Amino acid sequence: MQLLDGKATSQSIKLELAQAVEKRKKEGKKIPHLAAVLVGEDGGSLTYVGAKVKACEEIGFKSTLIRLKSDITEFELLTVVEDLNNDDEIDGFIVQLPLPKHIDENTITLAIASKKDVDGFHPINLGRMMLGLPGFLPATPAGILQLLKRNNIETSGKHCVIVGRSNIVGTPLSVLLSRNTPVGNCTVTLAHSRTKNLVEICKQADILVAAIGRPAFITAEMVKEGAIVIDVGTTRVEDASRERGWRLSGDVDFKNVAEKCSFITPVPGGVGPMTIASLMINTLEAMDFNGK
Amino acid sequence: MQLLDGKATSQSIKLELAQAVEKRKKEGKKIPHLAAVLVGEDGGSLTYVGAKVKACEEIGFKSTLIRLKSDITEFELLTVVEDLNNDDEIDGFIVQLPLPKHIDENTITLAIASKKDVDGFHPINLGRMMLGLPGFLPATPAGILQLLKRNNIETSGKHCVIVGRSNIVGTPLSVLLSRNTPVGNCTVTLAHSRTKNLVEICKQADILVAAIGRPAFITAEMVKEGAIVIDVGTTRVEDASRERGWRLSGDVDFKNVAEKCSFITPVPGGVGPMTIASLMINTLEAMDFNGK
Repeated sequence: MQLLDGKATSQSIKLELAQAVEKRKKEGKKIPHLAAVLVGEDGGSLTYVGAKVKACEEIGFKSTLIRLKSDITEFELLTVVEDLNNDDEIDGFIVQLPLPKHIDENTITLAIASKKDVDGFHPINLGRMMLGLPGFLPATPAGILQLLKRNNIETSGKHCVIVGRSNIVGTPLSVLLSRNTPVGNCTVTLAHSRTKNLVEICKQADILVAAIGRPAFITAEMVKEGAIVIDVGTTRVEDASRERGWRLSGDVDFKNVAEKCSFITPVPGGVGPMTIASLMINTLEAMDFNGK
Repeated sequence: MQLLDGKATSQSIKLELAQAVEKRKKEGKKIPHLAAVLVGEDGGSLTYVGAKVKACEEIGFKSTLIRLKSDITEFELLTVVEDLNNDDEIDGFIVQLPLPKHIDENTITLAIASKKDVDGFHPINLGRMMLGLPGFLPATPAGILQLLKRNNIETSGKHCVIVGRSNIVGTPLSVLLSRNTPVGNCTVTLAHSRTKNLVEICKQADILVAAIGRPAFITAEMVKEGAIVIDVGTTRVEDASRERGWRLSGDVDFKNVAEKCSFITPVPGGVGPMTIASLMINTLEAMDFNGK
């Protein structure tokens, strides 16, 4: 078994991006500037946004964190989005999800200018992805592609089973891995809560992606000997042995599954850092989309 | 074995649409108006566009057929598209594919106003589909959903194998059938030319969709006893016994496969008429999207 080390892979991406920033500086070009909007005080969201801002600093991107109170109205948040759409200094921005329940996430996503939608959640970017046209790829699926590519994992002709059909991970990843592209050409099965015989389905996978958000849901009996396992889950579970009282758990029963795998991503340090690296790649690409 | 009769099902849809038109007339509302742009003299395209115009007449929609020579430039075609975008009388329009090789199909598709894109090919409509937001669904996948729904075929928990990953059929259908919707909740496998063990993959299908464009490619050994088989293929093959010298062939070896199926679509008279029915549904829906 070999670890698919998202932390190391994302470091090499960040290094390349830092070099691209240096080159831009020398050429007198604009330095990419990412803004992140964080509504409320959710612990997980705070951590994610913090990591994104930190990644910007490491690479040399500019970053702006906009923190808003959890009782902000939808209209007020739309105004913030509109201001960012119109701010020429900001090349790309994200609104960290989840949002408080009184705000409709689709309304906000649709309001973000597609040219600044570095999370790749806007329908026009998803549609462009489906057609193989240039656009921002959703950050987590794109990060998984980078992880496979940079670790020289052949995907063509492989059977990939994805468990979980979310709009931001499972469904777009199923499209990306089935396309006729260098990191693609998989036979893809998209499974979910209504899937029958999930064990038999998963056992067919050459590449198994778990993106359901249920700690340790994928057990060893569901994994074929020699499979590649990608764990997208990051759920906080109680852990009295840790000072903070919790640890992050993936969707895979790592200890038992790892023994059967050829490759497996750890949690943390697997898909998470790759998601952030993708966001950074998208932010640099935003310069092209915006003609800067 | 029972035939999944697309012709009969589409007739009942057209009857409902005709009633909706009558109702609109009585209410003094605008009558839906579909325009179709046909470039060149391709025999198949002529037939398809003719069938669409005929369907409009049956239902009571207005229709306009715009025929253009095959040597029209891309710029000239874009001008036609722009005129249709701006014409308030036209509620929806299609540009029949394929286009001559000197015209980029993506350029044309992207130029069609998404609110009039009744073929559902524009990236924003595909993206809205992925997010479950209102929009035009691509006509063939939407027709297949209607065929399943109106013939009371349960999809939830079924394993659907789709062979063929085109932008207009296989890929969007894989998304639609996997969603958490009444005609959805399938475990979906998307297979294609790079798939290994295609026979074993297909044999798992409770619902098998063939959308590859290779006559009689799906043979009996690839089909599970009792499966539901949907044949999207319509290839002209030579047939000396016919006066015109050809017949339409589906992607399924109908004669041998039919014996093993619970349901199967014929070619012609299966998915084809359902595609046209979907286009008509989209044209009526365009009235809502355009606030008429």
